[in-house]
Amino acid sequence: MVSFVGPSGTGKTTLLEGVIAELTGRGHRIGAVKHDAHRIELDTEGKDSWRMRRAGADQTLLVGRDQLAWFGPAESRPDLHRLVAAFATGTDLVVVEGFRSAGLPTVLVERAGIGDARWEPPDPSLVLLTTHPDRVTEVADLLERRFLS
Amino acid sequence: MVSFVGPSGTGKTTLLEGVIAELTGRGHRIGAVKHDAHRIELDTEGKDSWRMRRAGADQTLLVGRDQLAWFGPAESRPDLHRLVAAFATGTDLVVVEGFRSAGLPTVLVERAGIGDARWEPPDPSLVLLTTHPDRVTEVADLLERRFLS
Repeated sequence: MVSFVGPSGTGKTTLLEGVIAELTGRGHRIGAVKHDAHRIELDTEGKDSWRMRRAGADQTLLVGRDQLAWFGPAESRPDLHRLVAAFATGTDLVVVEGFRSAGLPTVLVERAGIGDARWEPPDPSLVLLTTHPDRVTEVADLLERRFLS
Repeated sequence: MVSFVGPSGTGKTTLLEGVIAELTGRGHRIGAVKHDAHRIELDTEGKDSWRMRRAGADQTLLVGRDQLAWFGPAESRPDLHRLVAAFATGTDLVVVEGFRSAGLPTVLVERAGIGDARWEPPDPSLVLLTTHPDRVTEVADLLERRFLS
């Protein structure tokens, strides 16, 4: 796993998109994890999962062929490492957006004028890189050398 | 885990809703799993998870505080038992709609004129019940005796 961390406005998602496309094009199977601090709008009124939650279910899991959704109390949500162990089977590398407290190797994303002086990556083994979001090939090279060779 | 199985039109979801509400009201923590054969509409165009998939990510996980969504190839999806082991921590009983091939104890849901003569529950230890969907208390009693005492 490698995490992309940086303040909003630096183009993290755009960089990640580019890196995923680049590494996939080089033949690697990439898993992606995106933190969503906002309320995801998965569970809309009237759907069966919504009906089961309204009935009082503590946790609800909706299982499709190639999609899943889970709803439950925050304290029951598996942490990032358990989630990736359960889900990212068969991938060569999992790229993560956010989760700066998970102690992962980190690509620091900055852009001229937008940095995050408040945050020091917690681990000396981190991949540390100040980058513009258009430096896709450079980041892909670095991840390939470090994690995929 | 206990599975509710029956042809569509028998009121499985309504029965399940009632049973969840009844058991929750009796102080049990109930997990619910719903099979969705249709394409769940989780991943809408323009969302970050959609962008990562479009970029080529093999599997994408969207993590909210109290919600999760996973997208990936069907062959990578964990099976029901692994999903419940990963997710339904802390629940007293997990009720499942569908998944008749999972070999679970089963509540057979039938309604006058709508049965499923083609299917025999695979296990003699099954909870076997022909029911109308309004027999919530009876089903809740049975589940409580069998799984929650």
